[in-house]
Amino acid sequence: MESRATSYELIEVAQGSRPADLYIKGGTVINVYSGEFMKQNVAVYRDRIAYVGGSEAAIGDQTQVIDANGKYISPGFIEPHAHPWVIYNPVSFAVKVLSLGTTTIVNDNLFFYLHMEVEGFAKMVRDLQVLPINHLWLARIVSQADYVGERDYFAPEQVQRLLELEQVAGTAEVTRWPLLYNGDPFAIQTVEYAKRLGKVVDGHTAGCSYEKLNAIVAAGVSACHEAITAQESLDRLRLGMWTTLRNSSLRPDFPEVVKLITEANIQTQRILMTTDGPHPAYIEEEGCVDGLVRKAVELGVAPMQAIQMATINPATYLRLDDQIGGIAPGRRADLLVLPDLVDFRPELVICGGRVVAEHGNLLVTPPSIDWSQYLAGPAFSIQKSFLQDPDLYRYPHTSPDEPVPVIHFRSTVITQPKSIHLPVRDGFADISQQPGLLLACLIDRHGRWVARGLLENFATTLDGMASTYNTTTHPLVIGRDPVSMAIAAARVHELGGGVAVVDRGEVVLEIPLPLTGMMTTDTSFATAVEYQRQLLSALQERGYPYHDILYTLLFLTCDFLPGLRLIPLGLYDVKANRVIQPAVQMERERVRR
Amino acid sequence: MESRATSYELIEVAQGSRPADLYIKGGTVINVYSGEFMKQNVAVYRDRIAYVGGSEAAIGDQTQVIDANGKYISPGFIEPHAHPWVIYNPVSFAVKVLSLGTTTIVNDNLFFYLHMEVEGFAKMVRDLQVLPINHLWLARIVSQADYVGERDYFAPEQVQRLLELEQVAGTAEVTRWPLLYNGDPFAIQTVEYAKRLGKVVDGHTAGCSYEKLNAIVAAGVSACHEAITAQESLDRLRLGMWTTLRNSSLRPDFPEVVKLITEANIQTQRILMTTDGPHPAYIEEEGCVDGLVRKAVELGVAPMQAIQMATINPATYLRLDDQIGGIAPGRRADLLVLPDLVDFRPELVICGGRVVAEHGNLLVTPPSIDWSQYLAGPAFSIQKSFLQDPDLYRYPHTSPDEPVPVIHFRSTVITQPKSIHLPVRDGFADISQQPGLLLACLIDRHGRWVARGLLENFATTLDGMASTYNTTTHPLVIGRDPVSMAIAAARVHELGGGVAVVDRGEVVLEIPLPLTGMMTTDTSFATAVEYQRQLLSALQERGYPYHDILYTLLFLTCDFLPGLRLIPLGLYDVKANRVIQPAVQMERERVRR
Repeated sequence: MESRATSYELIEVAQGSRPADLYIKGGTVINVYSGEFMKQNVAVYRDRIAYVGGSEAAIGDQTQVIDANGKYISPGFIEPHAHPWVIYNPVSFAVKVLSLGTTTIVNDNLFFYLHMEVEGFAKMVRDLQVLPINHLWLARIVSQADYVGERDYFAPEQVQRLLELEQVAGTAEVTRWPLLYNGDPFAIQTVEYAKRLGKVVDGHTAGCSYEKLNAIVAAGVSACHEAITAQESLDRLRLGMWTTLRNSSLRPDFPEVVKLITEANIQTQRILMTTDGPHPAYIEEEGCVDGLVRKAVELGVAPMQAIQMATINPATYLRLDDQIGGIAPGRRADLLVLPDLVDFRPELVICGGRVVAEHGNLLVTPPSIDWSQYLAGPAFSIQKSFLQDPDLYRYPHTSPDEPVPVIHFRSTVITQPKSIHLPVRDGFADISQQPGLLLACLIDRHGRWVARGLLENFATTLDGMASTYNTTTHPLVIGRDPVSMAIAAARVHELGGGVAVVDRGEVVLEIPLPLTGMMTTDTSFATAVEYQRQLLSALQERGYPYHDILYTLLFLTCDFLPGLRLIPLGLYDVKANRVIQPAVQMERERVRR
Repeated sequence: MESRATSYELIEVAQGSRPADLYIKGGTVINVYSGEFMKQNVAVYRDRIAYVGGSEAAIGDQTQVIDANGKYISPGFIEPHAHPWVIYNPVSFAVKVLSLGTTTIVNDNLFFYLHMEVEGFAKMVRDLQVLPINHLWLARIVSQADYVGERDYFAPEQVQRLLELEQVAGTAEVTRWPLLYNGDPFAIQTVEYAKRLGKVVDGHTAGCSYEKLNAIVAAGVSACHEAITAQESLDRLRLGMWTTLRNSSLRPDFPEVVKLITEANIQTQRILMTTDGPHPAYIEEEGCVDGLVRKAVELGVAPMQAIQMATINPATYLRLDDQIGGIAPGRRADLLVLPDLVDFRPELVICGGRVVAEHGNLLVTPPSIDWSQYLAGPAFSIQKSFLQDPDLYRYPHTSPDEPVPVIHFRSTVITQPKSIHLPVRDGFADISQQPGLLLACLIDRHGRWVARGLLENFATTLDGMASTYNTTTHPLVIGRDPVSMAIAAARVHELGGGVAVVDRGEVVLEIPLPLTGMMTTDTSFATAVEYQRQLLSALQERGYPYHDILYTLLFLTCDFLPGLRLIPLGLYDVKANRVIQPAVQMERERVRR
């Protein structure tokens, strides 16, 4: 954590009567306020910019002078909508994107809050101030799914305590936007509370029509990043929302949505950009906000506008434009030295006044965090033996004439309901003769229920795998061999969360994700990339036909994307809003056996 | 005060399941978010906009439908920097500018606070919520002058209480910006407090160089309206300040500063506009923010940009863009129906959902306010008889060889020091043979001191006048005849503040200004215009050579404009920062006599 400059010190440096710590000389400052490129020097004192102009009075004996001749000096980039839990964790994500020029990240708190509750989350947020990046959070006001005991977890007084935290900039996306559309008092009141605190209200209105958006905006939502066409972006912009263009691993929508600027020629001051939680390899290959700027410019957006969309626009949206997003006195010294306006790969990244990266290499040591201290309880309250019973991994079935519902995958995350006839063996469905079918079991880590469903077009020769990497963070066990499935589940239990793949009773891949079952505890981003690649090739070798196994697993258990889903309530038809095969309550099942 | 719509109600109106109160149909909506002109309808419920689009589902039996065919629908205009004390008062100013389309005003609190202190001011602000306009305030953190017992009046805990008021949007201009430049702890800490509350820090950096501006911005100032050239505006914009272009009665600077846009072609999203407290006749003739938009467009600014500078830009600066400044659901229903984009004279003004003016005529009755309830004490704590002694109005002088300092007027508000030799009569300067000279006495209304000076080029045949309309609100008595001066001062005492002009012992003009000595208590703006005209012609008839007697009087007693000034400490040379003729302490003077 950088030491904070006082106003008095900054004034003196601006006056030239106190030497600067850093002085960047000879570069072209990207002035996002006026939209100009200007030959100017920048003086930095502790964590702040103190002076921008031609004077060299603040250069003292101890001042580190950086020669930026022929280079551009840009404000650090801002990611206004991050999900720092895609195998990577808040630390490994932060240091990776920092090395690429993203100096402020605004993190979704979902899984942290679900596993840490108010006290643990507040403590983590405070402790993470040691990170060499500017770190803000958005707090969910409802869960992604409405079956997690939401009214307990997300009681108004709990969420209000989160919103009051200094590092919490506002409310996080409400994925289940119909709650707002239908005037859910709980959601509405929390939004109103956030607004009273002067905080932002991040939206998520995927697929919402212009007409319906009116009601969502009336409910107080101030931004949305879910537009997938230029027209949807325009709808949001016109209705007063800060409109976030997304280019993520799951939704690489830029070529379409950027037409809002390149073809519709619309004013950009209320347009932002986000990577929206991409998988690790995507960041490794495409970058973070640097990649958004690069891609936008490649698609025809003027460099100044693209940089504004990554700096002053999100800063203004966040009501922090006096702190971040531009190069002016008093602002955080979050600065990039860029060799060109094509690649936007910073030669030097300065964050909070420290030179933190050079040519993409981190120069600071990421803090090692003991994550377990924040967790409200153990990963599993069931015993490992509970998961070792192969009978858990069979689909109860009594008559071959009764059709069985199947989750049929149409793409990485989209499924559709199907039903088929299956033979019966010992009271269970026999899938041994159906090479395209697998059994999936979502098992409560507190041992209260198990939800079962059959998958088609997910993989073929998968004996067993288990993964807490899904929206519920309960173990999701998938496969064709109950014994291998039991071994995979037991291994994930031993890991305290994570993924295991089992072939004929042998563990062939394991990925420990003890942080909420979603994240490594490793500070190395490369580890996350490696895990993702291992998992993807393991699954592709076993017949997985898509390219993003992480999002396939993540959303198989969600209740907000169309199709059939496996959720804690059972096998769920999202469109019909109906549980077509309820989860089995374990006490009953045990008694039955 | 309009009744506030709930989010639930707005959602229903947006959905078309609850009828709107107002429905504006067939107009062209000025969309300041996207920068487009769009054929759309607008539905209003209670004080808020509920829907913008093509659907007519919200039209019910009781809905008032306004036909806006062929007209433009604009967001109401915002005046981000008002001084509602120029003879007019907060009520008469508000209703006047409201009828012209300004639906939000951000008022400076200076004289109110000085005369009302925290309790009175807070009560007034609360009570003024009855006004049919959106009413915000900025709170001074130091006085305009540093001799008013500032450290008592402006103690940090007092100012902090003001800043915490919901209706206070931030700190008001710090006219004495060198305080910030020199790192005055008191000013710095208050600025920091305001920023911690998420409020804005309005600046005033007249004449401040680009280099010095660096230090002011480092101190936390977020805006300035004092640029008088395009270059000065650009300096401010580049350093991250929200840059306010001014066109006031005192400084009609638009033709110069607007070149920032029309010639330098700079991006306008952080540019605002202000009238900065013009005299009443100016508003009568030139309008308020409507006049700024009109003038900007006349000078070549695109209508969309000009309107944005009067709506969404100040709203965003104030961090209220989710409440005001644009036409979108959930925002205050502050809407103008404009016949064209040339005159910007609204045919209809809707404020907080009420139709408040039509063709410039107010349709609502302004509230009658008992202003005396807010004042912390009586206008004068001295007796009238105290002011009736003609000897008070003589300039002590002992030797004709000693030069006497003179305040020589060079323009409406600019003076320069001069010194002349004068004959002595009975221990006083004899000015009877100097037709260009007048005596001025600034008398403490608590009777502790009197400051005296001689004026040149102010007026010629003025026997006596008295005015509490000046930056100190103490009676300023000017003339060539001590008896007429005493009568004028006594009359102002009887009025409880105001202006009186006396010819040969006869009161020929009187203007009661019992509200802090600066303002009428009248709700009629026309009264203020009439008073101003009467005063100007009375003075011009007596040789006053300029056009703005209000600002001449106002700033004669200030200590922040160059030249010689008459301030409570005495005759003061601003540039030299030196009292060249101290005020006489009255106890001593009375003893001496």
